Amino acid sequence: MNTPATLSRPSLPRGFRYGSAACGIRKSGRLDLAVLACDTPAAVAALFTTNRVQAAPVHVSRQHLHSSRGRMRAIVVNSGNANCCTGSEGMAASRSTAHRLAALLKCHTEEIFVCSTGVIGVPLPVERITSRLPRIASRLESSAAAFADAAHAIMTTDTRPKWAAASCRVAGKRVWIAGCAKGAGMIHPQMATMLGFLLTDAAIPPALLQRALREATAKTFNTITVDGDTSTNDTVVIFASGASGAKITSSSGRSGTAYDAFATALEKVCRSLALQIVADGEGAQRVVEVEVRGAPSDRSADQVARTIAHSSLVKTALAGADPNWGRILAAAGRSGVKFNPDKSRVTLAGIPVFRRGRPLHFDERAAHNRLLRAHVPILVDLGAGRGSARVWTCDLTTEYVHINASYRT
Amino acid sequence: MNTPATLSRPSLPRGFRYGSAACGIRKSGRLDLAVLACDTPAAVAALFTTNRVQAAPVHVSRQHLHSSRGRMRAIVVNSGNANCCTGSEGMAASRSTAHRLAALLKCHTEEIFVCSTGVIGVPLPVERITSRLPRIASRLESSAAAFADAAHAIMTTDTRPKWAAASCRVAGKRVWIAGCAKGAGMIHPQMATMLGFLLTDAAIPPALLQRALREATAKTFNTITVDGDTSTNDTVVIFASGASGAKITSSSGRSGTAYDAFATALEKVCRSLALQIVADGEGAQRVVEVEVRGAPSDRSADQVARTIAHSSLVKTALAGADPNWGRILAAAGRSGVKFNPDKSRVTLAGIPVFRRGRPLHFDERAAHNRLLRAHVPILVDLGAGRGSARVWTCDLTTEYVHINASYRT
Repeated sequence: MNTPATLSRPSLPRGFRYGSAACGIRKSGRLDLAVLACDTPAAVAALFTTNRVQAAPVHVSRQHLHSSRGRMRAIVVNSGNANCCTGSEGMAASRSTAHRLAALLKCHTEEIFVCSTGVIGVPLPVERITSRLPRIASRLESSAAAFADAAHAIMTTDTRPKWAAASCRVAGKRVWIAGCAKGAGMIHPQMATMLGFLLTDAAIPPALLQRALREATAKTFNTITVDGDTSTNDTVVIFASGASGAKITSSSGRSGTAYDAFATALEKVCRSLALQIVADGEGAQRVVEVEVRGAPSDRSADQVARTIAHSSLVKTALAGADPNWGRILAAAGRSGVKFNPDKSRVTLAGIPVFRRGRPLHFDERAAHNRLLRAHVPILVDLGAGRGSARVWTCDLTTEYVHINASYRT
Repeated sequence: MNTPATLSRPSLPRGFRYGSAACGIRKSGRLDLAVLACDTPAAVAALFTTNRVQAAPVHVSRQHLHSSRGRMRAIVVNSGNANCCTGSEGMAASRSTAHRLAALLKCHTEEIFVCSTGVIGVPLPVERITSRLPRIASRLESSAAAFADAAHAIMTTDTRPKWAAASCRVAGKRVWIAGCAKGAGMIHPQMATMLGFLLTDAAIPPALLQRALREATAKTFNTITVDGDTSTNDTVVIFASGASGAKITSSSGRSGTAYDAFATALEKVCRSLALQIVADGEGAQRVVEVEVRGAPSDRSADQVARTIAHSSLVKTALAGADPNWGRILAAAGRSGVKFNPDKSRVTLAGIPVFRRGRPLHFDERAAHNRLLRAHVPILVDLGAGRGSARVWTCDLTTEYVHINASYRT
């Protein structure tokens, strides 16, 4: 798999071009506007936030996805302003953004997918976007550098861009899947609480693409949490250009093999992006992998794992590299899942710390040093069944508070 | 009502005596052990944590409450060690604490209520407690100073002791209710995630006392949240000495008036303690009152209010006195309650900021200054019904992270 360090032109799916600009929505003069365009109408699938408060671009993109029947030409995304809670002017802003880009690409307005990310409740200065689109549209490029610029343009509090690529073989043909994502805070299922843009040159119909996206998201983006807040703008979208000529037409039978290969590669890309998001969680020092075993069911294991991953007390202890495993067990205890602590065990960074209702002796200093690592595994075995689950989160640091106490200033 | 500044001997219910010591469980040499004793067998009611992981003293006190049929003589409580996840040795430690105090007070072991608070998973050095109990038991006093010492002895990360008192008249007699509490982090319903000790000189049977405690707790301790973590040791207990001679025998009929007066005074004391806990939330700069109106039901209003009060993004914005109301609306949006943002309104510290799907213009600097106050009200009207609810929380500061990243060090 290709990660940021190794992304190169051959890793990018054929049939796409990219363009970015600093249009002045972000005060810093940073890139804040990107277009990802397909040379031909692409098959498109998307998942949107489950928040009841949804930004204008979420409404508009959902409408466009429906009216275009999953055949679209381009994504346009701005950072620095979420265009959410902005009333009918906000809806008009997203629509005119799509309308302007459609005119430039000579396609229908409903073939444009619109996204925004940033502060909520501030009117979007849409003329800054529409006035820069002609220049972007006239200079679209298929280079890795152009893709990397797009990955930069969607960043908000992210400290680094996030991209990944993977490939698979379908009927002797090489299929590429690449993606970029943003997301540092407001990260919590359901669902993919972030913006994620996935591109592939597979030839796959929209309905099947939707299924593949839904399955991959459930296993990846929906298993991460930074702060438990889900945003109003969360969107994951995938465009399939078909430019590889590799057809994936069914998830069963002989071509099921092709679907499986594609789904596996897609999941790889999504998992890499999800873990990059957690590792770049606001103020995060380390990635924490919470694994729960021995639960009554997979579903209850997931419930326990999320409660632990969401506990401020667990996350602050990890910020201090404090092997305070009592907080882990206490979080499990309030998850709503029945279990008997006397049959449970906890392993922290590989060190057994609790078994059958009793604390185990361990070297506090050695444990502290292990907790300083970039990746910290937590294992809780409830001894109450065969269910298991894994969730990824990060530690909660003073830097998280600093970032979010002064986000708009 | 009497609050810490004004508590005096006449505010304390008759029939109780108090004693405290620094027995060396806390390294700092601070008071860490307290006894609250009734001169005669008191009627007792209690509520315990709903966490599946429960500390040894919770198990022991629940058993004692049951086997004594709600007639008990004293509470013994230590801070600095929760005696939780400590196996059968932990159970033995709580039992021997009760046994020792019972011998000193010449009562049955099951007439002793035991509590612990502090770090989880560390064996309780019980001999430090049992060796200091004789001296405490021989010097019990009914003074306000002795009560204040007990309130100090139960503190962990609390920066100040919390107590309150109120009185009511029953059949021409004055009845006093006083209480002290500890709790700074791990504060979240259900239920009263804290230790709370309530004393009254009313003459009321245990079953009726239990009802009064349950009702008061639902309206007070269960409406506060600091960090969403519920502890393994949470306990609220009330002892009624009967020393006032005022009998409360029924919650209906003529004596219902007496019950109502008692219940109102009890709720006052519990509310004062609850708000003192929030105001002293770990690292807190301000109390935030979240009121939700116009919800489909009171229950759904409560759900929305808790989601807002629990949002790290809302709480960090408040730490920075940033009028970032979009986060409030976004938190409401992910609460699971259906509403239409286009019919909603948000008022922040008295300033209307959002109405009917649109942001309102307001003076950012004036709003910032209002958010710097010690008490910040947030009002969200969903425009979806007649349900309402109020929840209290505090802001999330870097100090919270500092405290909890180094709690054990």
